[in-house]
Amino acid sequence: MKIHEIQAYLKRFFDKVQLVGSADITIDGPAKIESATKGKVSFVANEKYIRFIGSTKASLLIVGEQTPTGQYSDRLSFLKVKDPYTAFVFVLQMFAVPRMIARKGIASTAVIGENVSLGENVSIGEYAVISDHCIIGDNTVVGPRSTLLERVTVGRDCTLFPHVVCYDGTVLGDRVTIHSGTVVGADGFGFAPQPDGSYIKIPQMGIVEIHDDVEIGSNNTIDRATMGSTIIEKGAKIDNLVQIAHNCRIGESTVIASQAGISGSVTIGSHCMIGGQAGFAGHLSLPDRTHVAAKTGVSKSTHIPGQTLRGIPAQPIREQLRQEALIRNLHKMKEKLETLEAEVREMKGND
Amino acid sequence: MKIHEIQAYLKRFFDKVQLVGSADITIDGPAKIESATKGKVSFVANEKYIRFIGSTKASLLIVGEQTPTGQYSDRLSFLKVKDPYTAFVFVLQMFAVPRMIARKGIASTAVIGENVSLGENVSIGEYAVISDHCIIGDNTVVGPRSTLLERVTVGRDCTLFPHVVCYDGTVLGDRVTIHSGTVVGADGFGFAPQPDGSYIKIPQMGIVEIHDDVEIGSNNTIDRATMGSTIIEKGAKIDNLVQIAHNCRIGESTVIASQAGISGSVTIGSHCMIGGQAGFAGHLSLPDRTHVAAKTGVSKSTHIPGQTLRGIPAQPIREQLRQEALIRNLHKMKEKLETLEAEVREMKGND
Amino acid sequence: MKIHEIQAYLKRFFDKVQLVGSADITIDGPAKIESATKGKVSFVANEKYIRFIGSTKASLLIVGEQTPTGQYSDRLSFLKVKDPYTAFVFVLQMFAVPRMIARKGIASTAVIGENVSLGENVSIGEYAVISDHCIIGDNTVVGPRSTLLERVTVGRDCTLFPHVVCYDGTVLGDRVTIHSGTVVGADGFGFAPQPDGSYIKIPQMGIVEIHDDVEIGSNNTIDRATMGSTIIEKGAKIDNLVQIAHNCRIGESTVIASQAGISGSVTIGSHCMIGGQAGFAGHLSLPDRTHVAAKTGVSKSTHIPGQTLRGIPAQPIREQLRQEALIRNLHKMKEKLETLEAEVREMKGND
Repeated sequence: MKIHEIQAYLKRFFDKVQLVGSADITIDGPAKIESATKGKVSFVANEKYIRFIGSTKASLLIVGEQTPTGQYSDRLSFLKVKDPYTAFVFVLQMFAVPRMIARKGIASTAVIGENVSLGENVSIGEYAVISDHCIIGDNTVVGPRSTLLERVTVGRDCTLFPHVVCYDGTVLGDRVTIHSGTVVGADGFGFAPQPDGSYIKIPQMGIVEIHDDVEIGSNNTIDRATMGSTIIEKGAKIDNLVQIAHNCRIGESTVIASQAGISGSVTIGSHCMIGGQAGFAGHLSLPDRTHVAAKTGVSKSTHIPGQTLRGIPAQPIREQLRQEALIRNLHKMKEKLETLEAEVREMKGND
Repeated sequence: MKIHEIQAYLKRFFDKVQLVGSADITIDGPAKIESATKGKVSFVANEKYIRFIGSTKASLLIVGEQTPTGQYSDRLSFLKVKDPYTAFVFVLQMFAVPRMIARKGIASTAVIGENVSLGENVSIGEYAVISDHCIIGDNTVVGPRSTLLERVTVGRDCTLFPHVVCYDGTVLGDRVTIHSGTVVGADGFGFAPQPDGSYIKIPQMGIVEIHDDVEIGSNNTIDRATMGSTIIEKGAKIDNLVQIAHNCRIGESTVIASQAGISGSVTIGSHCMIGGQAGFAGHLSLPDRTHVAAKTGVSKSTHIPGQTLRGIPAQPIREQLRQEALIRNLHKMKEKLETLEAEVREMKGND
Repeated sequence: MKIHEIQAYLKRFFDKVQLVGSADITIDGPAKIESATKGKVSFVANEKYIRFIGSTKASLLIVGEQTPTGQYSDRLSFLKVKDPYTAFVFVLQMFAVPRMIARKGIASTAVIGENVSLGENVSIGEYAVISDHCIIGDNTVVGPRSTLLERVTVGRDCTLFPHVVCYDGTVLGDRVTIHSGTVVGADGFGFAPQPDGSYIKIPQMGIVEIHDDVEIGSNNTIDRATMGSTIIEKGAKIDNLVQIAHNCRIGESTVIASQAGISGSVTIGSHCMIGGQAGFAGHLSLPDRTHVAAKTGVSKSTHIPGQTLRGIPAQPIREQLRQEALIRNLHKMKEKLETLEAEVREMKGND
């Protein structure tokens, strides 16, 4: 691929893509700036990496509009754009080879139930099980050995990697991606305690709804609602090993990092960012654009959008950081207190 | 279903089920009180929800014996019971449609090993693998694609959802439910450090025993013992993504919430409640009826039954809450200390 | 098996294996010292267990060279070695029955793609899927229903338990063990935020490399690199439900306990020990022989090898423990402060 082809492609997304250097050099793939070799394209989106420009062996760098390039332009070319990070993502997409998850069509070993509706151009991998009354949209790929129980609806252009399980009634929108080992729609954790200390299971009669453009990582658990739906809204992104309990609602374009645990009936607004290993008490809600730091324990609802929470229990980050600083300096407080005690003792002795 | 049928069913479990209103109305399903429509049954078990009685569109409410109903009884009926929460669970069970996990009988694609003993009325799903010398009790359902390695014993009336793995030698009691992605009986994490810094694997020769009426959620890991058994006692309930390490013993009717981690050789008593993301150091024990708050780090054994523990490291909740309050007020202590310092300085200056 | 056979076997590993008692007794298996019966072998590696020597019913104990044995030697025999713990591991290995994961050869239900290279003596279990261009080394066992996507390379003498998924391009060394439900090589969690609040997926074009002698537990997630490789070095041991994000590098013989979460681009040195539920911020590095306590939140790189870190955020354990002690005694500081305030008030009143 020539540099001018990359420039042309980026012009689809950016008003201005300025070339510095030669347009005719062949680029054969992306690489990290510090380990790139001849023929590679890399990028600088962060000031920390400007120092590598002088030494990189890459042939093309995607950089910001203000990044100085003059002195290097004889041995490598530059494309200058407003957002070099996003531009590089597009470059990655140019070089990405489509991943083979399942061959086109229905594998001969797949089990397709009764009354299943398959769209155009659907691929169903080896040993997949599609149970009765499922509906699968156009161009969707179901990986080998994934299992859809009864009455699951999958939209178009979805990708289910191998070993995904969707329990009965699950509804997926369009362009949903789910990675291996994730279980969607298992029973919520609901048991009614009895006077003798035992528990009666509460039937979990709801479903899980996952809206368009959601991507869900590996080995997550997203439980069905007791009644109604557990909902993941459009464009949300969920990492690995995340627990989303029954009756939760996760807002649009909210991002949840690995090993976070969202307890039952929690509502999280849109455009939130939930850090790794964060946990939530049940039945609370967070407004839009809330950030929750990693390992935070959110114990009650908040009402001001755009806050950052941190700590166990969680509080606004400014208070939490102030408190952490006080704790770090506790030994100084203790010393001061002891000095003061000695002084007072001395003063009293002087009386 | 008519209200008098629901009343009759509840009388199986409660001495007194008092009807207020019409017995002849048709009820077609359960719903949340705030979103219920005509023909739905809902419930009020918590004072917070009494305010919805005036506005709900439901046709039947299950309520407590003391809940006032007179003013609403012309447009909806009530069934008054001692424990409306549990009563509503029974109502949910009346409406729950049995979930289809695997068709009756042995799927033609299931692989059944040698010397396997199958009880009456067993269902084995598509692509399940039942290895040599397994025993499966009456009415048990093994979901599609679940795998039992050699010499696994499963009791009667059990449900294994799709994609469950039981390693060799696992023993399940009766009425055990295991959800998708859970791995029972993998090797405990045991390695002997060597002088050169490498590790020798310690063979994990024990098994996992899961007793009657246990329900286990999705994507859990329950490791086999090094010698003897890792044991989950009767009626315990385990949520999702929980780690139970080798040689643990979890007591009867103990409940463990999502993402808790129980380290090796931990013994937890009966009727305990372990919060989400709680963690345990190895080789410790907790007595019966201990509650462990979410995110707690239990670092040593406790001996008084019925305590609630909280904090990292864990301590009795009263001490922990007192300590948390002191930390929240640290800035006030700092101010007081500084005021006092100034006063003492001034007093000394006065001398 | 006779005691003299056990002694002979241990002599392969230890210069000195001293027998006290009879060499001719038959030993039929290992057991814990406190529950051992006649014919069992057990061990004492920890002073706490010396008290069981007087009462154990075992017929053979593996003990340290200094452990006193004289008074018991009429009813049980001893083998005295320098490291009784490791010696007992070797004894366990003598009694361990090889676990049947898949029958020899290629199961008739396994799906083998095009251009797959299988070494000598490979076993592929029922319903395994080995995609195009995979390479599997001699003596390797792939359990039932494991899935290798395209171009996966597995070394010799590896064991993949049932329900393992390796995404395309994954490279495993020799003698690698992976337990059920673990997903290797799924996409890293990389999305570029856009001005409208939505996200563009960053193609994850790298792979995962797992070097020789690594053992990985159940239901872990090890993500592929964005570019280049996520690397687990030789001899590392990983427990269950651990998250290893894209571009991480885990050093040789490093041990990671259950539910730890390693964020993107973290580098952990060799011979480190990472405790359960520990978490890491992204892009940081820890030097060799660092110990991270359970539940720790590591928020920045450290540079001194051999440190122990603890706390949220993490700090060297001495400082953290000092700080925890100060917090535990905060109520005393508060009392002292109040006493001092009263004294100063009184002194001022006296003026």
